[in-house]
Amino acid sequence: MIFHTFATMKLKAYKIAEMLGGVVEGNDQTSINKLSKIENGDEQSLSFLGNSKYNNFLYTSNASIILVDNDLKLEKPVKSTLIRVENPNESFSQLLNYFSDKKTNLSGISKNSIISKNVKFSDDLYFGDFSICEKNSEIGKNVKIHSQVYIGENVSIGNSVIIYPGVKIYADSVIGDNCILHAGCIIGSDGFGFNLDKEGKQIKVSHNGNVILEDNVEIGANCTLDRATLGSTILRKGVKLDNLVMVAHNVEIGESTVIAACVGIAGSSIIGKNCMIGGQAGISGHLKIGDRVMIQAKAGVFRNIKSDTSVMGIPAIKYLDYNKSYVHFKNLPAIMKSLNKLFKNSKDA
Amino acid sequence: MIFHTFATMKLKAYKIAEMLGGVVEGNDQTSINKLSKIENGDEQSLSFLGNSKYNNFLYTSNASIILVDNDLKLEKPVKSTLIRVENPNESFSQLLNYFSDKKTNLSGISKNSIISKNVKFSDDLYFGDFSICEKNSEIGKNVKIHSQVYIGENVSIGNSVIIYPGVKIYADSVIGDNCILHAGCIIGSDGFGFNLDKEGKQIKVSHNGNVILEDNVEIGANCTLDRATLGSTILRKGVKLDNLVMVAHNVEIGESTVIAACVGIAGSSIIGKNCMIGGQAGISGHLKIGDRVMIQAKAGVFRNIKSDTSVMGIPAIKYLDYNKSYVHFKNLPAIMKSLNKLFKNSKDA
Amino acid sequence: MIFHTFATMKLKAYKIAEMLGGVVEGNDQTSINKLSKIENGDEQSLSFLGNSKYNNFLYTSNASIILVDNDLKLEKPVKSTLIRVENPNESFSQLLNYFSDKKTNLSGISKNSIISKNVKFSDDLYFGDFSICEKNSEIGKNVKIHSQVYIGENVSIGNSVIIYPGVKIYADSVIGDNCILHAGCIIGSDGFGFNLDKEGKQIKVSHNGNVILEDNVEIGANCTLDRATLGSTILRKGVKLDNLVMVAHNVEIGESTVIAACVGIAGSSIIGKNCMIGGQAGISGHLKIGDRVMIQAKAGVFRNIKSDTSVMGIPAIKYLDYNKSYVHFKNLPAIMKSLNKLFKNSKDA
Repeated sequence: MIFHTFATMKLKAYKIAEMLGGVVEGNDQTSINKLSKIENGDEQSLSFLGNSKYNNFLYTSNASIILVDNDLKLEKPVKSTLIRVENPNESFSQLLNYFSDKKTNLSGISKNSIISKNVKFSDDLYFGDFSICEKNSEIGKNVKIHSQVYIGENVSIGNSVIIYPGVKIYADSVIGDNCILHAGCIIGSDGFGFNLDKEGKQIKVSHNGNVILEDNVEIGANCTLDRATLGSTILRKGVKLDNLVMVAHNVEIGESTVIAACVGIAGSSIIGKNCMIGGQAGISGHLKIGDRVMIQAKAGVFRNIKSDTSVMGIPAIKYLDYNKSYVHFKNLPAIMKSLNKLFKNSKDA
Repeated sequence: MIFHTFATMKLKAYKIAEMLGGVVEGNDQTSINKLSKIENGDEQSLSFLGNSKYNNFLYTSNASIILVDNDLKLEKPVKSTLIRVENPNESFSQLLNYFSDKKTNLSGISKNSIISKNVKFSDDLYFGDFSICEKNSEIGKNVKIHSQVYIGENVSIGNSVIIYPGVKIYADSVIGDNCILHAGCIIGSDGFGFNLDKEGKQIKVSHNGNVILEDNVEIGANCTLDRATLGSTILRKGVKLDNLVMVAHNVEIGESTVIAACVGIAGSSIIGKNCMIGGQAGISGHLKIGDRVMIQAKAGVFRNIKSDTSVMGIPAIKYLDYNKSYVHFKNLPAIMKSLNKLFKNSKDA
Repeated sequence: MIFHTFATMKLKAYKIAEMLGGVVEGNDQTSINKLSKIENGDEQSLSFLGNSKYNNFLYTSNASIILVDNDLKLEKPVKSTLIRVENPNESFSQLLNYFSDKKTNLSGISKNSIISKNVKFSDDLYFGDFSICEKNSEIGKNVKIHSQVYIGENVSIGNSVIIYPGVKIYADSVIGDNCILHAGCIIGSDGFGFNLDKEGKQIKVSHNGNVILEDNVEIGANCTLDRATLGSTILRKGVKLDNLVMVAHNVEIGESTVIAACVGIAGSSIIGKNCMIGGQAGISGHLKIGDRVMIQAKAGVFRNIKSDTSVMGIPAIKYLDYNKSYVHFKNLPAIMKSLNKLFKNSKDA
């Protein structure tokens, strides 16, 4: 097995201190090329001490540089170079974003890509190798479209959107500002609808609608979002989907609702705002789910749910009720033992 | 956020009336470029009134054109242009198909694609950008293979097949006439099989079989269908899979069976004809499921199921039985309250 | 529907006998081009008789060649050519591997692919059409990277790795020796993590870690493995994932653990060695699962599990306990009937 190093970027301690408005304690030429947890640090990494529970790691960490609080008092000598800052947590977040931005600092249109003639896009577009954008589509400013992406006809893509490798977007889709689409997700495939003919064979229902993602939506890897039969499948502002989520035709998901991995939502269901849906939960078709609803992992929702409710089970009932019943379910063998005595006594009586 | 219009196609009222054998009432130069529901219509859309429950929308709709029944009597003036037809539902379906066909009216072989020399195909083939077809494969008539598709060696593709962007078809697969494969689906990956060696390590079992899709099969986005160990994984005529369905090695699915999203079927199970399998259901390996079986959403099937049965639960039992038991499950806290009194009384007695 | 033949390879009986150290009985010029089960054999196939239960098929099989035991005594004449070997099962396995190897005997770098200048790789690399490898990545010996694959920056790939069409590997991933990645799987997408700002909006957490697959790991079609927030998401030696499995950020899976299709594992959970996880099971975040744990299909694991435990249910409890309780659950309508009599009697009394 070959071992790799993050060789692309090196940062020296004095430079980092400048960025963060901090002060170096130790060798200001110490360099790092990655970030790590304080307990896992190695010679090329920068860590931080953001919680006093981890103070002991300060003296044993192999991290080359550690961010610490201005006021921290050392109990022993430290082999790492320290950078003292006002708030190590915030400073570390700042560095995390810096490293991420560096990685996505991509620009230019690959000569091995295809953009149809009448597509509108901005000068700062990044468009990767073997990617395709069909005719009549529009792409906003500061957009990064990675390699092997497919964008169909009449697609509209907003500003500051990131589309990772292998994403497929069918015709007529609308992608809002600041959306992130992870590798392999499919936007706008046909909904699953059939009419039975006289011989009981399935006749396909045409899907002429589209998918609309409003601003700040994030779609996980290998998710699938079907286009509407008519009208639109809509994900409102700030909706976040984890990986392998299925959103069927004509579904509408309210603002800032967060959906964990492997969830399935059947056709025409309307989900409210600020809901949280746990992993592998499923929602039947044509339902109405209120706002701030919590659907526990693995729940199967077969009925409408009112706002501010938490549900669990198959079919899903109120979370607390499910748990109370489940306690007795687990206890059924013991209960039955006592009960069978009663039955016996009552027969004997 | 940029807003888009479906700019590719405009149709005027007189032209639509011609197509449908209808009569225009109003301005026959009114043009539309999309279809909509009557309650959502806008200036560029055509709607229809197919159900008297929606009559009120006729007077408030912003749709430019509305299809109505020959016999409909207006109660008030209507701002939309009307087209009177014999059956508005059927006429609208006709237009849905017309719009869909327009979109898929693709032809030609991309110069940025790769087809191996000895592949047989018809003059009318559409073969998209960055798609690949390996040697010894055969492709029928009127086939549309979109962009970034991979077709391995010795693959056979029938007539009038549509393969959407990013589909991957492994060697030796057979795809029947009129099949539709949605974006990102994988046909013919290795089955999941291992033998343990003496040290308890997993040794991979070779998978030399293939996948056969008979005629009129539709496969949803990001589904995965594994090849057989020996022989074939087979989906019979008219089988329809929604998105993210997993079909393991050596599975056989009977004619016209319909499978909702996120279902998993383990190796070597045989499913009958005209079954309906609900979302996120799972079927263990080496089982035999009869014909016309209904497997409710989220069910876990661990045993054979006879024809004409409906099942639910984990492990799945008869649907009605599950529901009866679940009523009591939900009621267990109340039942236990009464029961504990009985227990107490019986001890006291 | 067009029918296909496996036309790429023909083997004659005398040649096969040579390979296996066997003896031909019949026409040693008989040729085959595929392997089959003895009950399904046709004129172009070779089968084997590995179990005396199947002896009858020997006299009815249409297979051109059948491998039989040296000691087998014929009861009737056989139309197939026989090859006598010491152990028909092992000899057949040998041929299975031979056929598989033939298929994957690929070499050369496609001129329609892109490998960045400073990527290190071996002369024997196979690199398919429209595949991409970004800068600073390293690829070991005897590696086969199929078509339309994406490999990001700083990726390390070991020796004898096979990567099937359409796989996407994000920057900084590490792939060990002898790994197999099936079509459409995504390695290293962002984890799913958000902090709420003061207005309740989701602010994305940067994911700067990576994914590490140790040696002999196999990843099924369309699986998704998220990179760590910091540090690594790790699959230890010999881990096998079936299709459509979701592995979240910072998860660690122990040696030789086998995971069936459609399983989801939430962030930061640690799974032990030699576990078996059934299809569609789910594991919540931040849990610790011991070694040799069996998680039954569809289980929902919400708590830590000790080694050598088998669990089932939602939430998962011990397998045997679940089954005992479920027997009573199924019986609840009958139990309630008896119980209601008791309640009635106790009220009457």
